[in-house]
Amino acid sequence: MKLEATDKLILITNDDGLYAAGLRTLINTMKEFGKLVVISATESRSGMSQALTVKQPLRVKLLEEDDNKRVYACSGTPTDGVKLAVNQLMERRPDLIVSGINHGSNASASVLYSGTMAAALEGCLYKITSVGFSLNSYSATADFSVCEEYIRKVCKQLLREALPDGICLNVNIPALPASEIKGMVVVRQAMGSWKEEFEKRKDPAGKTYYWLTGNFINHEPGSTDTDEWAIKNGYVSVVPVGTDMTAHSFISTLKTKF
Amino acid sequence: MKLEATDKLILITNDDGLYAAGLRTLINTMKEFGKLVVISATESRSGMSQALTVKQPLRVKLLEEDDNKRVYACSGTPTDGVKLAVNQLMERRPDLIVSGINHGSNASASVLYSGTMAAALEGCLYKITSVGFSLNSYSATADFSVCEEYIRKVCKQLLREALPDGICLNVNIPALPASEIKGMVVVRQAMGSWKEEFEKRKDPAGKTYYWLTGNFINHEPGSTDTDEWAIKNGYVSVVPVGTDMTAHSFISTLKTKF
Repeated sequence: MKLEATDKLILITNDDGLYAAGLRTLINTMKEFGKLVVISATESRSGMSQALTVKQPLRVKLLEEDDNKRVYACSGTPTDGVKLAVNQLMERRPDLIVSGINHGSNASASVLYSGTMAAALEGCLYKITSVGFSLNSYSATADFSVCEEYIRKVCKQLLREALPDGICLNVNIPALPASEIKGMVVVRQAMGSWKEEFEKRKDPAGKTYYWLTGNFINHEPGSTDTDEWAIKNGYVSVVPVGTDMTAHSFISTLKTKF
Repeated sequence: MKLEATDKLILITNDDGLYAAGLRTLINTMKEFGKLVVISATESRSGMSQALTVKQPLRVKLLEEDDNKRVYACSGTPTDGVKLAVNQLMERRPDLIVSGINHGSNASASVLYSGTMAAALEGCLYKITSVGFSLNSYSATADFSVCEEYIRKVCKQLLREALPDGICLNVNIPALPASEIKGMVVVRQAMGSWKEEFEKRKDPAGKTYYWLTGNFINHEPGSTDTDEWAIKNGYVSVVPVGTDMTAHSFISTLKTKF
């Protein structure tokens, strides 16, 4: 890869693995913005949250390289991949980290479990402007091209003006034809959780095992300023997500208890 | 286990595994408060963050049971363990979830990677009052008994009065003799990150591999209202941690950009 001083350098990653359709769309969309370093696992790392690989060593393999990009396979989690790329593999710190396009929504509490958003949060910790994109569909034939316009719009802005330290963006795109998407709205994370989370089965030897499953419940379906509301109503949701998990509003009350 | 209607029911978990000294101290301290269900992995799940097991089924094994507690081994992550216990294994929803005692600090940005705190955050999502305890020492001979007094103090309060929905506590205890601990303070998460994160080595076949390592940098060493400051200055830190990761203060600015 030929990197000139004027080139933007962009790190691309995801949690669905190197062969995911969402990653392919993201790479194709981002190549007009600069030189790309891509890092991901060969298999899905979905639901990995910000997990680190601490008990095993990490392996990295350069899979392809041309004038405009390098693609690495990494044995670890999305967070490991960002750490390795920024610390060991890139010519310099990237101007932008873009994660996704995730297969499935990362709105509401999904942000806590998401490997895609963890990669963006890891960027935050390095004070690198970072964003995660997700399409609200798990379908194998989902049309990711609807995301391109919004990826361009968001990344153009982020390359023009960096985000504040410790804040990244969580962008969720409804799985609708382009003509039915009403635009982009800045909203907050909806409060929600899952119900009926397991299927209990017997294996051929008669022993019990469990599959994680469940239905998401939006705890505030009436609120119109949340990501869940936006996606349900045909908008692309943009949520600023912070690495500061302190519940600041509760500090003064808590001080009276201890 | 005999569970009476008046008994408090407490779920105990950790991310260092069933044989960790910190978990033993936690179980011994908590048994005076009620009936215990303990769930953890047989091996360490350190640094697992809020990772979920989605591609493989989960297995659970009842290891021991007496009048006052049941102990389960779980094949998954700390978050899987909490989900399984609450949904499948417990007689009813627990009155309290207590995670730890973690071997090593979970202050500052460690909260994002911590399996111990992920278990408490999972409790939050279920609207169950939850707390994670950590001792600021990785030593194999660390003295966890110094934690007992603070576990008692915090859990007594939490059983008396539930936390608000979506907020749990991150309690970090300095590794000091009891007489040198100055007390407990309610503080916020310090902003920080890691530097020099990898050791690059060659395996016997001459191929490169990486070990995750690194040094923590407190980005705001001058602030006296953070968990890092508290622990460094001999205080037990109590941080309210929220499942809402929205950077609310940035929403109005972000609205002007898109």
